Amino acid sequence: MLNSKWFLEQTTDHEGSFHSLEEIIYAGNTRYQHIEIVRIGSYGKCLVIDGKIQSSEVDEFIYHEALVHPTMLLADSCNKILIAGGGEGAVAREVLKHPSVSDVTIVDLDEIAVALSKQYLLQWHRGAFQDSRVRIFHEDARKFIERHTSKFDVIIVDLPEPSDGGPAFLLYTKEFYDSVYNCLNEGGAMVTQATSASVNNLKVFAAIVNTVKEAFPYVNPYVVNIPSFFAPWGFVLSSKKRDILSLSRQYIEDTLDRLTGELRFYDYETHQGMFSLPKYLRNALKQEDFVIKDSSPISFYPSLNRK
Amino acid sequence: MLNSKWFLEQTTDHEGSFHSLEEIIYAGNTRYQHIEIVRIGSYGKCLVIDGKIQSSEVDEFIYHEALVHPTMLLADSCNKILIAGGGEGAVAREVLKHPSVSDVTIVDLDEIAVALSKQYLLQWHRGAFQDSRVRIFHEDARKFIERHTSKFDVIIVDLPEPSDGGPAFLLYTKEFYDSVYNCLNEGGAMVTQATSASVNNLKVFAAIVNTVKEAFPYVNPYVVNIPSFFAPWGFVLSSKKRDILSLSRQYIEDTLDRLTGELRFYDYETHQGMFSLPKYLRNALKQEDFVIKDSSPISFYPSLNRK
Amino acid sequence: MLNSKWFLEQTTDHEGSFHSLEEIIYAGNTRYQHIEIVRIGSYGKCLVIDGKIQSSEVDEFIYHEALVHPTMLLADSCNKILIAGGGEGAVAREVLKHPSVSDVTIVDLDEIAVALSKQYLLQWHRGAFQDSRVRIFHEDARKFIERHTSKFDVIIVDLPEPSDGGPAFLLYTKEFYDSVYNCLNEGGAMVTQATSASVNNLKVFAAIVNTVKEAFPYVNPYVVNIPSFFAPWGFVLSSKKRDILSLSRQYIEDTLDRLTGELRFYDYETHQGMFSLPKYLRNALKQEDFVIKDSSPISFYPSLNRK
Amino acid sequence: MLNSKWFLEQTTDHEGSFHSLEEIIYAGNTRYQHIEIVRIGSYGKCLVIDGKIQSSEVDEFIYHEALVHPTMLLADSCNKILIAGGGEGAVAREVLKHPSVSDVTIVDLDEIAVALSKQYLLQWHRGAFQDSRVRIFHEDARKFIERHTSKFDVIIVDLPEPSDGGPAFLLYTKEFYDSVYNCLNEGGAMVTQATSASVNNLKVFAAIVNTVKEAFPYVNPYVVNIPSFFAPWGFVLSSKKRDILSLSRQYIEDTLDRLTGELRFYDYETHQGMFSLPKYLRNALKQEDFVIKDSSPISFYPSLNRK
Repeated sequence: MLNSKWFLEQTTDHEGSFHSLEEIIYAGNTRYQHIEIVRIGSYGKCLVIDGKIQSSEVDEFIYHEALVHPTMLLADSCNKILIAGGGEGAVAREVLKHPSVSDVTIVDLDEIAVALSKQYLLQWHRGAFQDSRVRIFHEDARKFIERHTSKFDVIIVDLPEPSDGGPAFLLYTKEFYDSVYNCLNEGGAMVTQATSASVNNLKVFAAIVNTVKEAFPYVNPYVVNIPSFFAPWGFVLSSKKRDILSLSRQYIEDTLDRLTGELRFYDYETHQGMFSLPKYLRNALKQEDFVIKDSSPISFYPSLNRK
Repeated sequence: MLNSKWFLEQTTDHEGSFHSLEEIIYAGNTRYQHIEIVRIGSYGKCLVIDGKIQSSEVDEFIYHEALVHPTMLLADSCNKILIAGGGEGAVAREVLKHPSVSDVTIVDLDEIAVALSKQYLLQWHRGAFQDSRVRIFHEDARKFIERHTSKFDVIIVDLPEPSDGGPAFLLYTKEFYDSVYNCLNEGGAMVTQATSASVNNLKVFAAIVNTVKEAFPYVNPYVVNIPSFFAPWGFVLSSKKRDILSLSRQYIEDTLDRLTGELRFYDYETHQGMFSLPKYLRNALKQEDFVIKDSSPISFYPSLNRK
Repeated sequence: MLNSKWFLEQTTDHEGSFHSLEEIIYAGNTRYQHIEIVRIGSYGKCLVIDGKIQSSEVDEFIYHEALVHPTMLLADSCNKILIAGGGEGAVAREVLKHPSVSDVTIVDLDEIAVALSKQYLLQWHRGAFQDSRVRIFHEDARKFIERHTSKFDVIIVDLPEPSDGGPAFLLYTKEFYDSVYNCLNEGGAMVTQATSASVNNLKVFAAIVNTVKEAFPYVNPYVVNIPSFFAPWGFVLSSKKRDILSLSRQYIEDTLDRLTGELRFYDYETHQGMFSLPKYLRNALKQEDFVIKDSSPISFYPSLNRK
Repeated sequence: MLNSKWFLEQTTDHEGSFHSLEEIIYAGNTRYQHIEIVRIGSYGKCLVIDGKIQSSEVDEFIYHEALVHPTMLLADSCNKILIAGGGEGAVAREVLKHPSVSDVTIVDLDEIAVALSKQYLLQWHRGAFQDSRVRIFHEDARKFIERHTSKFDVIIVDLPEPSDGGPAFLLYTKEFYDSVYNCLNEGGAMVTQATSASVNNLKVFAAIVNTVKEAFPYVNPYVVNIPSFFAPWGFVLSSKKRDILSLSRQYIEDTLDRLTGELRFYDYETHQGMFSLPKYLRNALKQEDFVIKDSSPISFYPSLNRK
């Protein structure tokens, strides 16, 4: 440890990671969260919220391509897209690669976080905020969805992990997913990031999968390794109408061919890998029966968020 | 960080992980390496060599099943098996689940490490050392292979990462793989662990893949997430005779059905996931042209192994 | 940081120390506190309570000699001694070097902590618990003092820092010192450890000094560097009858000559150093006007003791 | 450890300190050393050289007053002063408070370090570099002294700890002190910082004391607690003509009264404390017989400076 300056991320009471810290670009509190933008030796520029790396310059393309494209392929049509969270603009950036998109609504609570992203995270949004199809609202995504009357083709949930006292605590509950269902068109699809899928820390992921199943007929959990998250990471994809495994290779490759802008992570082979879960994980998902409700929410950081 | 006692593993000059440290079961130097057996909060009992977690109670099944079974499926026959390294006995444990195995030769340099494993790592070997089919030699695996005249069906290379000054520095070179090739029967197969496949640290993995291709006609890199390694982890599978992708689902499932002893990680769907690499990784592998040679070896810990 | 196993002590929200961790001798919770006995590279065996090093093999002689002997010199007579806390037995060990001592009463709340000390901390007590002059009670020291009717010559307060929720929170208040005063003979003296005297962390020390002055006519703060505490450390000495500075060199040296057992830290020159405070510290003490009361207690770890 | 950004200073293979890191003001290499200027939670702005905190905004006054004033009091006259090292300008700042000073020569090898100090460390120099009495040379202090023909009244050695490969490795040897002796007027005095005086790390301090005694007839070691150094810190004062203990209180107080600029740390009582060493330390100094020579130098960081 000849280096002196370190960034530490404690992910559970028992483990975490450390990174050489090269630059503190920004650090400050908004009304909702503590935001840091730092440059670390292994991952370059990073957005950090409440001490957790949200995405890094080096591997944000993995996270954002993995989050966005499967659900865009799964939905019947991709005109009107809702992004819950996603204030760095990278989800919108990926969404806008689909030529059919006419309307992107970003609902991110934290106006300051979005302003900081605009200023410091150019690689993330790359002009997405300037695209005339994009509108942004600063309010609670759940309230927005509950009161929204017209419907979306795709809803992408890109929020921090559920955490007692955190802004996304009740955005992983059955009630929330019911609202999402109601806010989707008939051929609509939803995806949410769904916390760690690590063998010793997969309880919350399993509970989210199980909860989404209460609200949607077709649910596909998938796993992608995001190096800066230091864990295999879970996602949950759901649809009103079909299973992702019903999509043919031909359809997937043709659709991706028509995108404006290249993908670095996602293609058919990658897709196959993401949706092929290891046996122990499939077994854990099968056994899970906990349903997350407003009255019994779940926290990914049970003890760390004591403040 | 209310806890006071921590285990730190620095994996590069720029990053590492930390774990609550619950018990120091053993710590000492052998002639070849510094060995620690510790209990950490997130992964239970761990074997640590030269400061790197080699495997943990919680997820060693992932690593060992991933390492062993694909190559056992790929080889024409599985009678005589050579394990280079593997002194904890877990590779042998998995090998012995294949009923055709008649002969397992473990060549692990470090007799003390093996003795410590026998005493402290029961979950790893679970009786494998007592199996009458197993013989163990304490010498350099490369020298053993170079001078061995009869041939093996399968060679499994389970060694530490190549590191300047470390015992496995020259066991990832073209010359070594040539010797392995010569020591295999016509339908034989080899597998080696092959370091990190993380997007920002995949140079050594890519070089190993490229080097094995110099020695073998059929080479399949694959990637598995091992949580205690804090990275997607690379493996390289090779065969004299066929590609792993030529194996049918039927054949794989039938063979696994005949195993004595259950698998928790590996099955056909897992297999599919392991061999479906993400696009950026396939591109990186395609572009790699470095061949590791005795005269130009490669180190996974370029600066950390300064002593 | 080639070493992997570390002991971390966070002393404030902003700083702390780390030590190579060689052995975890004991770790467990009692009813009152979390106790660890560890061996660290720089200080040998250490007693750790609630994550704070209480004393180390290498420098406990400094702390214990500094705590005990000035007050023993200051009191008119040294027959009956009360130790509040001090369950490792090292305070008693030092007290018993004074030949006039006939009676040592240790009041330490935590019976398990004392039992652990007896078993593991031989260097600390060195037979003190077996001395026929020593009696030990396991109860709250404040309650003991409040209800005790006969008087002591010397009271030595060797307790953890005051901390919200900790067992010694109300043993640094004016009300407590009033009880101590009432429990002392006319020529009696008291000493208490009094937390850090570091230039950037001396508020609690200053408040204790100021509070003791509310209860006693003669008060002498002093400072000793205890390396394992990573700070200059404050103590407060008080007497009903005289100032420590009135003691002559002759008297001090003669008294120390008569001790049974050698001192390694304390002699006249050391004494002079301890009671010669740096200018900025004297100024800070002069300006302090906060009186710690049961109704307005003070915590040395304002945010760290959140549990 | 809710904070994410930390500054770590490892002081030996076995221990170190950590601090919340608030701002990285500067980080870069000069030809001679790695320089960082950071803001940490506990000590404010700090100058860090090769990973070691050199001085902090909060307590630099302690270090610099302790280094400068005793030697200024001890010398027969204080006209021509040489500072070896001291590129932050704080030694010069203190020296200039003595009204008799006519000439201050700073010899600091590292021009970039001095330029950085001028720009970032205003609190340290406070105009000292602009004072017409001050001249600065960028060369090796030892070579400067060896070749200098006229003499100084006071030489103040403010260099990093001796370290194999570091710039000050041979500025703590008998040969160096002989040169210093020869470069001083008859009533001249020298002081040097002399590394840790901690009970478990005082070998280098003791060796420096012993070595200075080979060159000077009057030598007074002294110890001051510098909180940001996390240890009691040793200094060695020496004179051609008299012992510091021969100075009367009256003389000391009168001299300090005539200073231009107030002192916060140093006065007569502080002085008494600094020169009253604890018994164990006096004993360790008595027993030391190692003489540091060019042919047998000593390193304060024996293993950490491996690069």
